[in-house]
Amino acid sequence: MNIQQTASAAKAASIHMAAAGSDLKNRALADIAEALKDNSPAIAAANQKDLDQARADNVTAPLLKRLKFDEPKIAGVCEGIESLIAIDDPVGRTLNATELDDGLELYQVSCPIGVVGVIFESRPDALVQISSLCLKSGNAVLLKGGSEAAQTNRVLAELISKAGENAGLRRGWLGLMETRADVAQMLVLDEYIDLIVPRGSNEFVRHIMSNTNIPVLGHADGICHVYVDSEADMDMAVRITVDSKCQYTAVCNAAETLLVHSAIAEDFLPRVKKVLEEKSVQLRGCEETCRIIDVKPATDADWRTEYLDFILSVKVVDSLDAAVKHINKYGSGHTDAIVTQNKENAAKFMDLVDSADVFFNCSTRFSDGFRFGLGAEVGISTNKIHARGPVGLDGLLIYKWRLIGSGQIVGDYSGPTGKKFTHRKLDGEYGL
Amino acid sequence: MNIQQTASAAKAASIHMAAAGSDLKNRALADIAEALKDNSPAIAAANQKDLDQARADNVTAPLLKRLKFDEPKIAGVCEGIESLIAIDDPVGRTLNATELDDGLELYQVSCPIGVVGVIFESRPDALVQISSLCLKSGNAVLLKGGSEAAQTNRVLAELISKAGENAGLRRGWLGLMETRADVAQMLVLDEYIDLIVPRGSNEFVRHIMSNTNIPVLGHADGICHVYVDSEADMDMAVRITVDSKCQYTAVCNAAETLLVHSAIAEDFLPRVKKVLEEKSVQLRGCEETCRIIDVKPATDADWRTEYLDFILSVKVVDSLDAAVKHINKYGSGHTDAIVTQNKENAAKFMDLVDSADVFFNCSTRFSDGFRFGLGAEVGISTNKIHARGPVGLDGLLIYKWRLIGSGQIVGDYSGPTGKKFTHRKLDGEYGL
Repeated sequence: MNIQQTASAAKAASIHMAAAGSDLKNRALADIAEALKDNSPAIAAANQKDLDQARADNVTAPLLKRLKFDEPKIAGVCEGIESLIAIDDPVGRTLNATELDDGLELYQVSCPIGVVGVIFESRPDALVQISSLCLKSGNAVLLKGGSEAAQTNRVLAELISKAGENAGLRRGWLGLMETRADVAQMLVLDEYIDLIVPRGSNEFVRHIMSNTNIPVLGHADGICHVYVDSEADMDMAVRITVDSKCQYTAVCNAAETLLVHSAIAEDFLPRVKKVLEEKSVQLRGCEETCRIIDVKPATDADWRTEYLDFILSVKVVDSLDAAVKHINKYGSGHTDAIVTQNKENAAKFMDLVDSADVFFNCSTRFSDGFRFGLGAEVGISTNKIHARGPVGLDGLLIYKWRLIGSGQIVGDYSGPTGKKFTHRKLDGEYGL
Repeated sequence: MNIQQTASAAKAASIHMAAAGSDLKNRALADIAEALKDNSPAIAAANQKDLDQARADNVTAPLLKRLKFDEPKIAGVCEGIESLIAIDDPVGRTLNATELDDGLELYQVSCPIGVVGVIFESRPDALVQISSLCLKSGNAVLLKGGSEAAQTNRVLAELISKAGENAGLRRGWLGLMETRADVAQMLVLDEYIDLIVPRGSNEFVRHIMSNTNIPVLGHADGICHVYVDSEADMDMAVRITVDSKCQYTAVCNAAETLLVHSAIAEDFLPRVKKVLEEKSVQLRGCEETCRIIDVKPATDADWRTEYLDFILSVKVVDSLDAAVKHINKYGSGHTDAIVTQNKENAAKFMDLVDSADVFFNCSTRFSDGFRFGLGAEVGISTNKIHARGPVGLDGLLIYKWRLIGSGQIVGDYSGPTGKKFTHRKLDGEYGL
């Protein structure tokens, strides 16, 4: 099948996925877990081929680590599937119910979005997580994993889609894309695809966002800030800065810019510099920073740069307002943290910083679906609509309005002598 | 100010709108209502100029009726503002609260989207409704009304923005756009504008959707269906068909296609034809329809056409599944109704039809924010994400994740000996 056929099959399947009951979906999930366990030698063998190729291609050690998908990792994703089975079906929940008039009842009921296209890095566990999240939320899914994991992904997609079909899901509910050309084709298939979730480099995500009419959920930059307020606990501020920058530099929720209130800059900057430099972090400072500590000067471009590396830009600000202004101007609306002992300052920062995640006295690195308790994460969104920050199951859902009448027509409610709506809140759940 | 400056000012104001308390917003709304009442002679005078010009330009009677904004209509919108004041602030609601660990609490809290650009028809009451909905939901707003209402809109926008500013909102919270060139400029200002809601003709909305990277909430086509099932009550089916088609033809929730189950087509089609033709509706039928009643044949294009006129395409289908398939193929995901006495059929139809609004035994014309009890309506959305169907206040909101810590860093939760998250559901509301 070409991508258009794959997408069209997914669209057709999605209609039935939306109507699939909890039992069917949970049975499919259980069968998928079983298929993965039963076939773990075959999965591991395919993964070994990917690993061999990756080593031959001299890929980096962290990538190799993410690419590896052995028996313990397979057991891990199966546990994830078990916890998905255990949670209540997010589809079919009555969000609101209103009596419009006697015998005319309106129900706003959660439902899947339809067909979701997800592009993700070379991590086979992501393929399993994303497809099981889509299944639980009743969505059909098109998957494109990193090319380094091609062999593993092919085996996994085949096992998962077949196990789902054998359990009773429509053929085509899961489609695999394998090449960049496939992804390029997908971008014009707005007739079939309802949402794209791209994970990957800034340029890649930006390219997707600029080249499709399909809604995109995700983030390009992750330019996260730590603001150390005049009333910060210095030790805490050092620890939070170091963790936000260094705990894992290659990720979107790592801090890229440190903002320091001028009232404590003279004390704080030398202390934080010492610890950061022990961690091999290179600092780039504003003029005032360079006056206080001996670091390389920052340019305007630094405030807009996601280093994803052991580099941190540092700016001294004269007020909380100036910190907020800097973040709202240069930030990416991802995650920004304030360190302070003053709750009013924290409240103000959290109200005025226009980001998906606003944190008080903790590391920016907490911004993550697992840490937030959302279960697996589809992605992190810096969109301003639909879903913001770490996106779990909820981001894969929308709603339908279901109106149950007994012959009502609008003509009867029109004009000065028309019937009046009751608009009475109902407690019940939708059901026929 | 040019549009870029207007949009930039709105963005700056939006940060403070998001943090505005309920008292400030309600005071601003009350002051706006008062300003409108106090200045109703000036508003009516400006409106008279628009009406005179429109008459000179020979605009249609329905447009003149919508354009008219006299004292009773001004009183009407002021009543609308009073009911907005009465409802709870939708901003700052805690949607979810989770303890991640001792002293580390996560709150998902509703907040405004930011800057919303709304383009609407020549109805001055829409300007008042939209700006007050945006204010209540803490959004800054850029407005572009129909050019026929230019004089009225200018007076209204000036009064509303000034009354808001005098009450304490930031200057620039409401911006008025006046020309098509303004709108074209707005489409590239994704740096400042977070959402566009275009209301208007199919071509116009489609043009907006295809020419901006800003998320668009709305609908192009409204190709709504009535499906008369084999087990329909015939009288009810006639009434619902007639109301769905004729109650107001020029609107998106009017029916454009009638689907009739073959088992009752011989009985039903002559009956519905008689009543529709009394209402001057022209029918266009499929082959089977033309065999049963004497109507013009439909072409494939008819199934994709939003007539917005006294024309109805008619198709005989052999099953509920065929009806669903037709709707999901040719419909626009707006509003589709089934008429049947069989609840199982209704349930199946409502599960499988992939539209924002799925109705059972009532007219498609009920699909409307006022009739749904949402208060005023920003628009009707056929998007699959964020908001679907009639969009009221809720569609103007999103959320922020607010994490309150006491010095936690991710390093402490990493590795085999790391601390474990508690992920305990909290009952409390966010507050510092």
